[in-house]
Amino acid sequence: MAQRKNISEAVIRRLPRYLRYLSEMHEHGVPRISSRELGERMGLTPSQIRQDFSHFGEFGQQGYGYRVGGLLDAIRHILALDQQYHMAIVGAGNIGQAVAKYRNFREHGFLVDALFDTDPELVGKTIEGIEVLDWNNAGMYLKKNPMDIGVICVPHEAAQAAAERLIEGGVQNIWNFAPRDLDVPEGILVENVHLSESLYALAFRSNHRDMTGS
Amino acid sequence: MAQRKNISEAVIRRLPRYLRYLSEMHEHGVPRISSRELGERMGLTPSQIRQDFSHFGEFGQQGYGYRVGGLLDAIRHILALDQQYHMAIVGAGNIGQAVAKYRNFREHGFLVDALFDTDPELVGKTIEGIEVLDWNNAGMYLKKNPMDIGVICVPHEAAQAAAERLIEGGVQNIWNFAPRDLDVPEGILVENVHLSESLYALAFRSNHRDMTGS
Repeated sequence: MAQRKNISEAVIRRLPRYLRYLSEMHEHGVPRISSRELGERMGLTPSQIRQDFSHFGEFGQQGYGYRVGGLLDAIRHILALDQQYHMAIVGAGNIGQAVAKYRNFREHGFLVDALFDTDPELVGKTIEGIEVLDWNNAGMYLKKNPMDIGVICVPHEAAQAAAERLIEGGVQNIWNFAPRDLDVPEGILVENVHLSESLYALAFRSNHRDMTGS
Repeated sequence: MAQRKNISEAVIRRLPRYLRYLSEMHEHGVPRISSRELGERMGLTPSQIRQDFSHFGEFGQQGYGYRVGGLLDAIRHILALDQQYHMAIVGAGNIGQAVAKYRNFREHGFLVDALFDTDPELVGKTIEGIEVLDWNNAGMYLKKNPMDIGVICVPHEAAQAAAERLIEGGVQNIWNFAPRDLDVPEGILVENVHLSESLYALAFRSNHRDMTGS
């Protein structure tokens, strides 16, 4: 597959959206789609779409549009959703449990293998068929069971230490729900979900409709 | 307070980050901070910071830096976190319950007044002190109890209908956790939290470290 370097952050963010839109079309039996039509649905220009797809190879034929099924497979492959990911969740509180129970992830190959906590009332419990393990003994577990993704769902004051222990245990990709930025060595990827910041941004926009242009 | 139109999306996203960093400094008793120092901590340039703050008035004095406490109050006020927001959550599943239980929101004035579901096994149950109400009877409730924010935590196929009923009930701001874009009339604000897309983006970056520059 033709690959170019330096995929922009914006393209990376659009890929999962393409997947979502194309999946829905595929479910509805749509066989082909033009970049113009896809652009209208997604709020993108046709040339933006053609440019995005050009990063990854040739999927369309001038005048015929894109085959939805073929494009969907290609994007799934590009996103590497045709493989499995082993995840360990640190923090079996509300957010940690919600992530563990979210069936969408499992269906796309993201498997929660381990759920850690320090709370003696949670350790030993079974959530979604997964036993909650003691985070203080995580080092050994992570050495024996390499994890692709560590999910941090602990309070903000415990998040940095959680990241460090995950990294010590060989985890290179961190999905962080704690409301703080993590300080990690080069080569470690962090993807943040800052829920409070998302909510505050909504509150701000609702109070400044005149300033934010909607 | 001096206000200019057309606050960019990037500034709106940075405001909650400023709040977070300044809160931490304030908790640690830091009295003043320069734009250079704040920039270093946050990965921003000093001039970016000065420009951001200039949207909202004058908080610093050349050579003396910013008073952390004063700036914090100002940002809280700008974000309108000194007022209360009434929220209704639609969908009392894993995500809906996690949002309802997240104490951080309540502490910042975001109050979950109502939790709706259609599942007879959930309706009538009490979660976090809030009775789960029947979504099919939500119209009357929303008319009597105006909500500032509607939180959509239903599966993607039910999300558009949920948004429409919220809007009919007078809700103008929607925080959407369902994995789909919502089609809403002009003037209605939607803030999306697409968890799957965040996870897929992480998976993509982990598989294309060479292409994404980390």
